[in-house]
Amino acid sequence: MNEADFIAALRHLPLHPGARNLEDDAAVLEVGGETLVITHDVMVEGVHFLPKQDMADVGWKLAAVNLSDLAAKGAQPVGVLLGHALGDGDERFLHGLGEALRTYDAPLLGGDTVSSPSPRSFGLTAIGKAVHTPVPSRTGAQIGDALWVTGTLGAAMLGFEALQGGREDNASAYSMPRPLLAEGCELAPHVTAMMDVSDGLLLDAFRMAEASEVSIAIESAACPVADPARRMECLTWGDDYQLLFALPAGVEPPVAATRIGQVEPRGFAPLFVDGEPVTNREGLGYVHK
Amino acid sequence: MNEADFIAALRHLPLHPGARNLEDDAAVLEVGGETLVITHDVMVEGVHFLPKQDMADVGWKLAAVNLSDLAAKGAQPVGVLLGHALGDGDERFLHGLGEALRTYDAPLLGGDTVSSPSPRSFGLTAIGKAVHTPVPSRTGAQIGDALWVTGTLGAAMLGFEALQGGREDNASAYSMPRPLLAEGCELAPHVTAMMDVSDGLLLDAFRMAEASEVSIAIESAACPVADPARRMECLTWGDDYQLLFALPAGVEPPVAATRIGQVEPRGFAPLFVDGEPVTNREGLGYVHK
Repeated sequence: MNEADFIAALRHLPLHPGARNLEDDAAVLEVGGETLVITHDVMVEGVHFLPKQDMADVGWKLAAVNLSDLAAKGAQPVGVLLGHALGDGDERFLHGLGEALRTYDAPLLGGDTVSSPSPRSFGLTAIGKAVHTPVPSRTGAQIGDALWVTGTLGAAMLGFEALQGGREDNASAYSMPRPLLAEGCELAPHVTAMMDVSDGLLLDAFRMAEASEVSIAIESAACPVADPARRMECLTWGDDYQLLFALPAGVEPPVAATRIGQVEPRGFAPLFVDGEPVTNREGLGYVHK
Repeated sequence: MNEADFIAALRHLPLHPGARNLEDDAAVLEVGGETLVITHDVMVEGVHFLPKQDMADVGWKLAAVNLSDLAAKGAQPVGVLLGHALGDGDERFLHGLGEALRTYDAPLLGGDTVSSPSPRSFGLTAIGKAVHTPVPSRTGAQIGDALWVTGTLGAAMLGFEALQGGREDNASAYSMPRPLLAEGCELAPHVTAMMDVSDGLLLDAFRMAEASEVSIAIESAACPVADPARRMECLTWGDDYQLLFALPAGVEPPVAATRIGQVEPRGFAPLFVDGEPVTNREGLGYVHK
């Protein structure tokens, strides 16, 4: 099955009320008066990382992408579980993973180690505590909101190209992404919708619009990009892990961010880029086949 | 790295206090006055299931092995997250997974879907609520305790052989194991130590002895086996997902179980089988290389 069909089929399984939109970054679990946020992301050799890549970066990134999902929910890390395929570079993997867990105060809870031929897969489950309820999701964008994004888009793309070209010193935006946990927690009480930009700004904005049943209009010239000469590439490349969020008109974000568009009544398409409608996801970013 | 070295290296990472013994079946997380139990197990094509196997059985088993870890902790399922490599047989996989989730009231919370070449990996994180604290672990066996096991050992072995021989009707003990959730919850208030038998009775008893810093003496003739003519094979084959537990002398278990041995002061070896010391894990059961 492709991803869309699979997720559609998942909706026929018994679903927890905290699963909400299954395409959301993380689930929400109410326990004893606390609100937990829980997410699980997988990285596959040759798909999500290069076989020749330093395994320390893979360990770091596995933690970072999951912690970024917590950031998008305004949650502070509680702990992680690791699903690990044993093999070459395990020392380096643990070094990078450990660095990320120390940096973001996300201690190891447990997990599983398995034997596996190539390609190896690594999974991580991250659990956090929400600092604010209701927990932000991608479904809440309201007509009239302004759309904002943190940081610079396309930095991971340039980092990937540097890595491909052997310039590893310039690759950190790709190989060691920084989950914006502090920013996510500061933003959570203010936003109507929030998600992390993992698969490309335009694709993720498209998803927010679909989930919120609105249209989102983006001005490409307003978007902060790492290479203005390749603006559309920067907006369709993933892996930046910036936060994309909607705020009521007139509300200034409590963290550094750029206003890039607005939320409108659902029109002909979920997404408009410079006034042009975008009716399907093809070409917008990274879609799992 | 091999599994033992990897787990040793994990101990240098920041550890959550609930991680306890990292080799334990699941971690314990105190949240808002509740005690959660959380576990993550991975299944790899060609390692944990046969490529020709019905994917419905793989989906069922992925849920069952994780829920069995909750059973060993005396926890009731709250929800699960799925890490899924898309591919052939996904409809069947979801059918089997859905059956297990319905049967054991373990609704889907979320997860991740990825593209992956063969061999595919599937991971599941299961979260439960402990019915009793302190939560049982494999570390608590006390000198003088009796050692007990539920059910029959070696049934999964016969099921595996039936599957290999094309007799799928007789394979259910291997292909559709039943996590003993009700039994685990009934046992939790009484046991000093408990674990599920996933890798073979002798290996898992060896692990309980090591974790509890005692010796365990097992009488092989007392062990309930599916094929008495192949008793030692039944005691070293895994996948039965019975519960192995220690009870103070004189305490009768509240569920059907067989007394198979006793807990003794730590002697020359962690495990004695019919009086013979067993000093290392080789040959006792399934060890991940």
